[in-house]
Amino acid sequence: MVQGAIDFARQHPEHQVILVGQSSVVEASLAAESSHRPANILVRDAPQVIDMAAKIAALKENPDDSMQVCARMVRHGEADAMVLCGNTACSVAASQLHLGRIPGVKRAGILTPLPNPTGSTWVCDCGANSVCKPDWLVQFAEMTCAFLKCYQGWEKPRVGVLSIGAEEGKGDSLTTEVLDLLRQTDLEVVGNVEGNDIFKGTSDIVVCDGFTGNVLLKTAEGVSSIISRILKDSIGQSLRCRLGAWLMLPAFNQLRERTSWAKVGGCLLLGVNGITIIGHGRSRRDAVESALLQAARCVTTDVLSGLRRHIQSLRTTV
Amino acid sequence: MVQGAIDFARQHPEHQVILVGQSSVVEASLAAESSHRPANILVRDAPQVIDMAAKIAALKENPDDSMQVCARMVRHGEADAMVLCGNTACSVAASQLHLGRIPGVKRAGILTPLPNPTGSTWVCDCGANSVCKPDWLVQFAEMTCAFLKCYQGWEKPRVGVLSIGAEEGKGDSLTTEVLDLLRQTDLEVVGNVEGNDIFKGTSDIVVCDGFTGNVLLKTAEGVSSIISRILKDSIGQSLRCRLGAWLMLPAFNQLRERTSWAKVGGCLLLGVNGITIIGHGRSRRDAVESALLQAARCVTTDVLSGLRRHIQSLRTTV
Repeated sequence: MVQGAIDFARQHPEHQVILVGQSSVVEASLAAESSHRPANILVRDAPQVIDMAAKIAALKENPDDSMQVCARMVRHGEADAMVLCGNTACSVAASQLHLGRIPGVKRAGILTPLPNPTGSTWVCDCGANSVCKPDWLVQFAEMTCAFLKCYQGWEKPRVGVLSIGAEEGKGDSLTTEVLDLLRQTDLEVVGNVEGNDIFKGTSDIVVCDGFTGNVLLKTAEGVSSIISRILKDSIGQSLRCRLGAWLMLPAFNQLRERTSWAKVGGCLLLGVNGITIIGHGRSRRDAVESALLQAARCVTTDVLSGLRRHIQSLRTTV
Repeated sequence: MVQGAIDFARQHPEHQVILVGQSSVVEASLAAESSHRPANILVRDAPQVIDMAAKIAALKENPDDSMQVCARMVRHGEADAMVLCGNTACSVAASQLHLGRIPGVKRAGILTPLPNPTGSTWVCDCGANSVCKPDWLVQFAEMTCAFLKCYQGWEKPRVGVLSIGAEEGKGDSLTTEVLDLLRQTDLEVVGNVEGNDIFKGTSDIVVCDGFTGNVLLKTAEGVSSIISRILKDSIGQSLRCRLGAWLMLPAFNQLRERTSWAKVGGCLLLGVNGITIIGHGRSRRDAVESALLQAARCVTTDVLSGLRRHIQSLRTTV
């Protein structure tokens, strides 16, 4: 993680990276990773640690863990954004606890881009709320639209509801209610989409409850891994395949560029009153660098103001 | 589909294949596909048709559609098993309507094998019940164990509950209740598993509600497709990659052998009182052949008796 931060800091002298954690550990890592520390890397001490298996209650017992120190820094304007690569449930809770939500937002959702043939399909919620109400999903769609307008310049993204059949009426009571509510908004609604449609790009945005979204995200990760593992095993078995794999390196690199989690780096926690990027607990060097890039882009494209304005406009029209 | 049936019939003269559908259409297909029809292929007329977009109500209006004609044939012992490659919801309903469930079974579930590094992880329910009660999932686990004992000779498969965190207590009320109930059975319970764990093989069986299972299955399909598409696009761009891809053919074939849906062909509808294999609406030649093979193996390994005995033994011990 420290190496990823150093990479980002070197590439982006216009930004400052503050590493938050037990300062002795962080300083030792910094010294080990690089003899010449970039001037735009600072360290902030967070004496307490919350591990990956901890439950949300751990936040109360450890007010000075790195997640909460980060969140307070963002709240007080000492940082413009934060990247959290630890316990997801605690990251979500710490962020909502200290930053609060954008006025009018009912729940924050985890927003993740997944690859489709021409770019990305943005899925929300990928794990912040395991059980959801219909109007939360509608708001996830509204917020994702506002986000994409700032972040990508997309004017009228197409919204789909994740279900188990493309036809109207298929799914459960949540999906049918969400679709009904979405049709009453100004959004461009394509209807139900299925798991495979996400990777075809039949819509730009897909909303779902956080349980389903998290399973979806981790399934996508699992399928990528097993395909890569089976291919590697087969390649190892013959000289012919090894030579073929070497010749195919440019294609494999393109594939990695388009589908690797490391290229995404993290998911935006959409709806909190500050920029929070949730990284993976297993984030490595390149993933950390990507997550920092994403955080920086959220700040430079001012997605937070865009979100605030959009939510405000919806409240005044209702 | 007809070609797949011909392939199977030629390879397996010990089995008989009865093609059920509008007989004029089926006969025309048979004539077009093969000048010499295998003697072990018969045709049965089913004058009505239920299309992919139809709802379950269509079953009542079309009592002589191919799914219901098939189901009645299985019920009356005119066929030992059926493979349905149409509308999934109607296939599930037709099967339960005409075959009923094994005595003691609360709900039928769709069982699907997904690849892991050493073989398959069996997931149930992949779409028969979009909303589930905890005891149904426990029964899916029991039935899958009984099935795997007959079908694969596995004695003590490990059971996991699909959730959004490996730690005990993570998930929603359904997953925590299911885990509690499973711990009270004789099954070998590993605890919660996540979407990516399925493809690591941390358990042999994974239970989940049919909504999540269906999203999971279709996501897996979607990720495979996008990876293959991106690779093909990159390969097409350079001679070097095309040569590499040709050299790597044996590895790609192994990958297809291990991960392709066509090799699975269909999902068993677990719990109905007869062998029903639910194929994909888009099943092609090789997928149909695989589904027929699977149906035949279910019959020769007598999974139905194994399931009946196991469910019966559970009822007498309770």
